[in-house]
Amino acid sequence: MREDVEIGLGRMAQRGYHLADVALVPSRRTRDVDDVSTGWQLDAYQFRVPCVAHPSDATMSPASAVTLGRLGGLGVLNAEGLWTRYEDPSKLLAELASLDDEASATRRLQEIYAEPILPELIVERIRQIREGGVTVAVRVSPQHTLKLAPVVLDAGVDILVIQGTIVSAEHVSTADEPLNLKEFIADLDLPVIVGGCTNYQTALHLMRTGAAGVIVGIGADEWSTSDTVLGIRVPMATAIADAAAARRDHLDETGGRYVHLIADGDLQTSGDIAKALGCGADAVMLGEPLSMSTEAPAQGAWWHSAASHPKLPRGAFGTASEPLGSMEQILFGPADRPDGTLNLFGGLRRAMAKCGYRDLKEFQRVGLIIDGTG
Amino acid sequence: MREDVEIGLGRMAQRGYHLADVALVPSRRTRDVDDVSTGWQLDAYQFRVPCVAHPSDATMSPASAVTLGRLGGLGVLNAEGLWTRYEDPSKLLAELASLDDEASATRRLQEIYAEPILPELIVERIRQIREGGVTVAVRVSPQHTLKLAPVVLDAGVDILVIQGTIVSAEHVSTADEPLNLKEFIADLDLPVIVGGCTNYQTALHLMRTGAAGVIVGIGADEWSTSDTVLGIRVPMATAIADAAAARRDHLDETGGRYVHLIADGDLQTSGDIAKALGCGADAVMLGEPLSMSTEAPAQGAWWHSAASHPKLPRGAFGTASEPLGSMEQILFGPADRPDGTLNLFGGLRRAMAKCGYRDLKEFQRVGLIIDGTG
Amino acid sequence: MREDVEIGLGRMAQRGYHLADVALVPSRRTRDVDDVSTGWQLDAYQFRVPCVAHPSDATMSPASAVTLGRLGGLGVLNAEGLWTRYEDPSKLLAELASLDDEASATRRLQEIYAEPILPELIVERIRQIREGGVTVAVRVSPQHTLKLAPVVLDAGVDILVIQGTIVSAEHVSTADEPLNLKEFIADLDLPVIVGGCTNYQTALHLMRTGAAGVIVGIGADEWSTSDTVLGIRVPMATAIADAAAARRDHLDETGGRYVHLIADGDLQTSGDIAKALGCGADAVMLGEPLSMSTEAPAQGAWWHSAASHPKLPRGAFGTASEPLGSMEQILFGPADRPDGTLNLFGGLRRAMAKCGYRDLKEFQRVGLIIDGTG
Amino acid sequence: MREDVEIGLGRMAQRGYHLADVALVPSRRTRDVDDVSTGWQLDAYQFRVPCVAHPSDATMSPASAVTLGRLGGLGVLNAEGLWTRYEDPSKLLAELASLDDEASATRRLQEIYAEPILPELIVERIRQIREGGVTVAVRVSPQHTLKLAPVVLDAGVDILVIQGTIVSAEHVSTADEPLNLKEFIADLDLPVIVGGCTNYQTALHLMRTGAAGVIVGIGADEWSTSDTVLGIRVPMATAIADAAAARRDHLDETGGRYVHLIADGDLQTSGDIAKALGCGADAVMLGEPLSMSTEAPAQGAWWHSAASHPKLPRGAFGTASEPLGSMEQILFGPADRPDGTLNLFGGLRRAMAKCGYRDLKEFQRVGLIIDGTG
Repeated sequence: MREDVEIGLGRMAQRGYHLADVALVPSRRTRDVDDVSTGWQLDAYQFRVPCVAHPSDATMSPASAVTLGRLGGLGVLNAEGLWTRYEDPSKLLAELASLDDEASATRRLQEIYAEPILPELIVERIRQIREGGVTVAVRVSPQHTLKLAPVVLDAGVDILVIQGTIVSAEHVSTADEPLNLKEFIADLDLPVIVGGCTNYQTALHLMRTGAAGVIVGIGADEWSTSDTVLGIRVPMATAIADAAAARRDHLDETGGRYVHLIADGDLQTSGDIAKALGCGADAVMLGEPLSMSTEAPAQGAWWHSAASHPKLPRGAFGTASEPLGSMEQILFGPADRPDGTLNLFGGLRRAMAKCGYRDLKEFQRVGLIIDGTG
Repeated sequence: MREDVEIGLGRMAQRGYHLADVALVPSRRTRDVDDVSTGWQLDAYQFRVPCVAHPSDATMSPASAVTLGRLGGLGVLNAEGLWTRYEDPSKLLAELASLDDEASATRRLQEIYAEPILPELIVERIRQIREGGVTVAVRVSPQHTLKLAPVVLDAGVDILVIQGTIVSAEHVSTADEPLNLKEFIADLDLPVIVGGCTNYQTALHLMRTGAAGVIVGIGADEWSTSDTVLGIRVPMATAIADAAAARRDHLDETGGRYVHLIADGDLQTSGDIAKALGCGADAVMLGEPLSMSTEAPAQGAWWHSAASHPKLPRGAFGTASEPLGSMEQILFGPADRPDGTLNLFGGLRRAMAKCGYRDLKEFQRVGLIIDGTG
Repeated sequence: MREDVEIGLGRMAQRGYHLADVALVPSRRTRDVDDVSTGWQLDAYQFRVPCVAHPSDATMSPASAVTLGRLGGLGVLNAEGLWTRYEDPSKLLAELASLDDEASATRRLQEIYAEPILPELIVERIRQIREGGVTVAVRVSPQHTLKLAPVVLDAGVDILVIQGTIVSAEHVSTADEPLNLKEFIADLDLPVIVGGCTNYQTALHLMRTGAAGVIVGIGADEWSTSDTVLGIRVPMATAIADAAAARRDHLDETGGRYVHLIADGDLQTSGDIAKALGCGADAVMLGEPLSMSTEAPAQGAWWHSAASHPKLPRGAFGTASEPLGSMEQILFGPADRPDGTLNLFGGLRRAMAKCGYRDLKEFQRVGLIIDGTG
Repeated sequence: MREDVEIGLGRMAQRGYHLADVALVPSRRTRDVDDVSTGWQLDAYQFRVPCVAHPSDATMSPASAVTLGRLGGLGVLNAEGLWTRYEDPSKLLAELASLDDEASATRRLQEIYAEPILPELIVERIRQIREGGVTVAVRVSPQHTLKLAPVVLDAGVDILVIQGTIVSAEHVSTADEPLNLKEFIADLDLPVIVGGCTNYQTALHLMRTGAAGVIVGIGADEWSTSDTVLGIRVPMATAIADAAAARRDHLDETGGRYVHLIADGDLQTSGDIAKALGCGADAVMLGEPLSMSTEAPAQGAWWHSAASHPKLPRGAFGTASEPLGSMEQILFGPADRPDGTLNLFGGLRRAMAKCGYRDLKEFQRVGLIIDGTG
């Protein structure tokens, strides 16, 4: 068992490690880059790269979801974002792209997201993605699942994503009838991805709901303020490794049901992606990195869903002066900068080759090293 | 028992953790925000939020103490501050609010606080707060308790706060008759809050004086220079957890006397508050966060009591360009910035809900995680 | 055995220490600086200082390789660098020296290195170095060893350096016939240096190929981006100490074959050099420090080989306003700045004297101390 | 025994703690400031404060040594500094005070210190200090002790300080007859202070030479570059605690000979001083803090002796825009800034009172706490 720390008399704390704390250790074998596969399969759906888009309005429009799907990843549209609140959000997105004062940006986000969600727009957006010929995935929040999921499902999606900052298998409420994830998922005949979660127990309970995939982490990056506002910070290397232990135990208790782990947080560079997968994730959920593509709907602006919360926003707002490159260049290069933000999956592939692994499942066993002194 | 560190041959040191080192770990359950209670009760006094004002002239005037009381917290006026030295300190406060040179600020504070304390003003200030219809709490220093407490008590307060940087149950002096806290408190029939203290032993001894509440910490924030000047630094997560162990042991040795822990230090954001309570505190003492309200008497200026010491000032002086919001907005939102400085107790409430806890006593058991590598 | 860390349930990571984490502890004896020897011998070749040049175009031209050899170190020319792609690369080097925009620098490097390698230029460059009367060492990459090594060997070198970012004794490829290092080295009658590697296992396997020297590390310095792009970061103190254990075990399993360890990475100052040797290295490979000499071909510009990769560059580009001093002054002083960048081996010598050691082999046992808290 | 760290297979390192890592923990008792004594006695000499001046030309002239002595500390003049090389160094000191380019400062220091030492000036300087009516202490380097000590002793000093960066009881030299400290000290009838040293073994051996005091540390502060140039860094809390263990063991092996520990390094503020004494030092050696006094000969400029080394300078050069205050104000206040640089020993006294200790010997047992995570 893990060695916990006694931070005060009788009060224990777990030790957590961030992806930045971790590095990969090559094995005694190396491989050709061309012999390495980054393929990923979730249920019946195959992907060239283990890349799921963070369902943020800054990255995912119907059009960019199609682009990502065609490139071999999985686009996810937010059923509760601007595309389902506004007939044409492009002016708003352009306005956000040009904001430069962070304080007023929060207020503007709060105003913009105060508009109600229109079910007919959900149907329309799903139709647009489906016409692109790619796997269709849509995100709803746990709070609105019972209301919005029927609309989403009727419109015909391939994968449903139920995602909130922190999602548990057991939500307690004295007011409303809470969502019973297990019953809800059992009634569906499509794969569901659910999360985020931060630890072994919650991950295991979410796996037991019948989800095909569990999101690990809360999407935190340098723009996130969950730690400052809520006191919640998720060291992703530990969160992923703990969830991988839950995946192993769930595999055992079910006699073979494999639930995919999708890491969401601390992911900026190809090195981060390699570390997340090396710690045990099956795929990564990318937000800000995709917001820097020429296809990104908000032209380089980036914010978290929680950044628009009407009373307790939790996320800063940032803009980029110009895109880094096309989505294809961001995913597959060629890179003309050495900072790991371009050719994300070429970088992953090369890391796997240098460490000596052929595919992602093998790569989950790569050696790890952490800095001994902070 | 805790594992100490041998810093040199035969010389041990305890390991201490700061609130910033700690984060909360959600449990496998989540709750509705509206089902969560942040209520706190000290002796017969009930509070909507576990918020005690740091008795600083920068935050507490008679008027702002009333405002805080009406909002559901506990205002505390300093019986040895400007309001009891000057008939009308508003000009001085305005002058301080406009100072911008830190070095000269220290000298100006030293001059301003050289004025003697006037007992009749103590009586007058207490009357003003009482007229506001809120719980009346006043702070005296241990050195002046024997002289000033009678004035304070005669004027009629509900709660007496005896607070110095470091207070012990056993002050040794060859010159004066020192304050015997145990005898002093036994003679009173009102609840006394006493502190600050930094460790298990001192906390336990302070509890044995009969105090209703013990202040844990020395109020340190980024403006404090106790570490630089005195070599004393208090890792608050550890100090709170150690004091909570003392609370537990005192509960056992007395067969049920529960002494409240009021955390004082490292508290800037709602996340910090959630962490302090999660480590075991019953309430938090807020200084600088309240100094940023429109009701703050020094209009955004902030300094510690020790910053005006005539020979050994220990605390920097800071000013804010404009207030963050009303005291109500600071405590309860809505926030229009994502940095955890607004809606402090809405943030606490949401943290409790996301972690799955109903009330503050339950929340003291929330899971904790620390960064494994600095 | 080393105590590993459980970063998540069942997932272990090794702890790694950087040279910056480590410091030398003097013994109870001190020595005269003039009694200390920094001499190093690899196979039949003797060197005044344990200094091998990083085979970078920024530091090594045929001329500067000769200069370093005459000063008592080992120059190494890159057989795959600009000097073997261009008849006269001096204009390109001058252009690089004057670049100041990092982003465009990467693109320019990519263009410049797209030019093919010309075997006749390899022969010519080797001839130039040989005429200088120094030990001739040339670097080839593992990928091009089978093609280029015959050219290099025919041209007559003393030491062959087979160096890539990560080299293993077992490269797996489905496309080409991979290089079998063991067979390749067995057929040669000159000493081979091979690397880099990052851990005990790979170091031991590389030693078993018959190499005379093994490069430990991946040349990382502040311009390297291997961690960001690939997730690979090498804490050098640990990598060197682990490789020293492999050297010890290889010595035992072979009954006396001593393989030299050449540390490559984290080396900027004389203090860094002393630490690397104190951790167990036999020699150091210097890149950027030599790029600051007046003899450096790129006049202060510095980049890694991997910085010019056509699709996945891994290394930033830097320029210096003016050289620090001659190569002699950089190696042997006198220093007129106190930052450890001049008189590198005078600094080493003095460190050895103050710690009480006579020669490099003894110095590998020097006491070490690390910072207890990050 | 202390738990060492295995930084690589079979390679151990000690853990070291800096004063900044450590903080004092108050006991359950507090005291009046006026009941606390900071008195220190070395051999027959009594001091009001445990303050020894670093023998630097930046702080110690004959005049400032007298000033410090009259204030209750111990001034130490460097017999190998500017005052013994130049009849009147005041112009040079003024020139140094006005230098602002660090690189040229090193070269200028090298030039200025190239001048030979004049024995007659040593005699003259000692006479000047003696006339001031204070305890006379002079520093010589180990290398020049045999040559210069006779001059110093004939001129009549009270305390001899033999100080180099690293001094051992066993200096090995093939060239000169090395200084045998034990024999040398045995022949003297005045107390000798010797150092610096960095660890238990060296401290114990230096104690066995018969020294009255041992200097712990190498005087490192933010201007020192020993780590960068030599790879030697001394975590002072550990060095002091280890030397205190040597003092204890030496006391036992000699049946009662108490050797004083003078901490030299990491000392900028009153908090640092309190920590050094709390870790076990008997006194502190102050350099840069005294260089900021109005009496400092170089008017705020500061450099280490090693900063003028002709071939391997190890120390940066800094200047201050204006003095902090008189030496009296620096030592005893009143402070008008809150950063711990004024009223150094008033700060110490208050720290002792708040922690509950009466004198320095008791205070060596004060509780310590270190930051758990870097």
